[in-house]
Amino acid sequence: MRAIVIENKQLAWVEVADPEVRGGEVIVDVTASAVNRADVLQRQGFYPPPVGAPAYPGLECSGVISAVGPGVTGFHLGERVCALLAGGGYAERVSVPVGQLLPIPAGLSLVEAATLPEVACTVWSNVVDRDRLRPGETLLVHGGGSGIGTFAVQLGAAMGAKVLVTARAEKHERLRALGAELTIDYQSDDFVRAVLAHTGDRGADVILDIIGAKYLARNVAALALDGRITVIGMQGGVSAELDLSRLMAKRGRVSATSLRARPAADKARIVAGVRDQVWPLVAAGLVRPVIHRTFPLAQAAAAQALMESGDHFGKIVLQR
Amino acid sequence: MRAIVIENKQLAWVEVADPEVRGGEVIVDVTASAVNRADVLQRQGFYPPPVGAPAYPGLECSGVISAVGPGVTGFHLGERVCALLAGGGYAERVSVPVGQLLPIPAGLSLVEAATLPEVACTVWSNVVDRDRLRPGETLLVHGGGSGIGTFAVQLGAAMGAKVLVTARAEKHERLRALGAELTIDYQSDDFVRAVLAHTGDRGADVILDIIGAKYLARNVAALALDGRITVIGMQGGVSAELDLSRLMAKRGRVSATSLRARPAADKARIVAGVRDQVWPLVAAGLVRPVIHRTFPLAQAAAAQALMESGDHFGKIVLQR
Repeated sequence: MRAIVIENKQLAWVEVADPEVRGGEVIVDVTASAVNRADVLQRQGFYPPPVGAPAYPGLECSGVISAVGPGVTGFHLGERVCALLAGGGYAERVSVPVGQLLPIPAGLSLVEAATLPEVACTVWSNVVDRDRLRPGETLLVHGGGSGIGTFAVQLGAAMGAKVLVTARAEKHERLRALGAELTIDYQSDDFVRAVLAHTGDRGADVILDIIGAKYLARNVAALALDGRITVIGMQGGVSAELDLSRLMAKRGRVSATSLRARPAADKARIVAGVRDQVWPLVAAGLVRPVIHRTFPLAQAAAAQALMESGDHFGKIVLQR
Repeated sequence: MRAIVIENKQLAWVEVADPEVRGGEVIVDVTASAVNRADVLQRQGFYPPPVGAPAYPGLECSGVISAVGPGVTGFHLGERVCALLAGGGYAERVSVPVGQLLPIPAGLSLVEAATLPEVACTVWSNVVDRDRLRPGETLLVHGGGSGIGTFAVQLGAAMGAKVLVTARAEKHERLRALGAELTIDYQSDDFVRAVLAHTGDRGADVILDIIGAKYLARNVAALALDGRITVIGMQGGVSAELDLSRLMAKRGRVSATSLRARPAADKARIVAGVRDQVWPLVAAGLVRPVIHRTFPLAQAAAAQALMESGDHFGKIVLQR
């Protein structure tokens, strides 16, 4: 088969060995994959794949099952699926543990479905499963125009939360259309002041952050009592001063997580949660794929360059 | 009645007005109270009582109900109780919201019962309710010889966790008798190295910390995958560098909380959890009051001086 491999921090579309089907896994013939920030970091050498993961980038895909390994039940040859991957989505075929397979949500094309597993599992596992966002609470999403952001805005709104986002001004109208109640231009506005003003000084109950160090103190300042901050990206640096007395005054907490290195059992539990709690919202049209642009898989380098520009809104797709 | 009041950062035993019984509250004639670190901070001016709380120090007591306010059900005149307080325990009488009352655990004296509400509610709400310590997991308790520490060691062990503690060397034998599997002398040992060595490099799943800034980076280093750090005291400073990439590598989280300022409904939920989940362990003898010394209530100043010395092991009681 062909796959995108990383050579000297460049992406190349080359012939590689087919994946072997192992016990508890299926082979998916890939229809589409999508670009995630972690793929860019992997290419740059900052984010090596976890032990046992495919060497090629790509944390999600959709396609058709072309082989079924020993011990697999509940999925069959020829079935259309999408999947959360530990890597290997930028390829014509990929082996997937059965616990990471998801059905195609009703009403979605295979290409659309390829854009959901990574963001759905990331947002659900943090915002819903651990941080227990409740209806009526306020969710602050940083980087609202990203794949994670556009998904989190919709999921938060569908769950009955008030959603506030930071994003470049040119993305605000589209974010409001997705359900954001307040859009904050982080280039010209102080998000702490904007969040406190909008919430009557209460602050945000849950903050989903891709910036990291640069926003840590401000996230604590923007937090409501009993609030939860989740850091899933560090585009603004890794290390910052944390004032524990301010965190304590909020009875707050700061989590930092990533999905990729989680053990298979954990991923299976998260995928099951997404299937049960998120897929019905997708089928009902309350949460929709947001696709900025589709590239041929062979042009993954151009797709990653677009992500690095920050000009995209939603997901960047790779299609075979 | 008489109460301990704070005058120019000193404690004085003086005549004050009796508390009035309000709706949903009872008056408790205090048999005993106990000293908490927060009382010392309050005397020093660092920790003003929350709005609506009694002005006198004292976060817990035991005694006998001497008046019942309108709307109170489930408690009666003459009943022996202990209670979690927002303040006012260093007094002959105190008004208590009914949701903060607890029965005297079977087999305990009133004086013994006075030492449990604050530590039980603090440890349970953090370690059990939010951080979900599970049997077989490792709990690291800093300041093992404190009231919080001696309680947390016993509760962790009773729940089937492996309990590791830091404490002065002279307290180690008594901590092992309470259930600690590993005692670490923080004055001579590196607790990170000791915890990692003892756990086969896994680290601690839950860390209960009273030190704060000085231990923040080391707590992250000693944390297991999916580990939870709870800061409930800041004896080692309030502000420190947090490396989010290290926290993310652990998929870790840092919470900072205090119990006193929580709303009444929250406290009632925590008290109910303690009654249901902790009191049976006390009645079964698996978790016991650890009393270092008892002072007459009028000598609260001497009791606080003992706490400041750090020489105590367990709780310091104030008895009428």
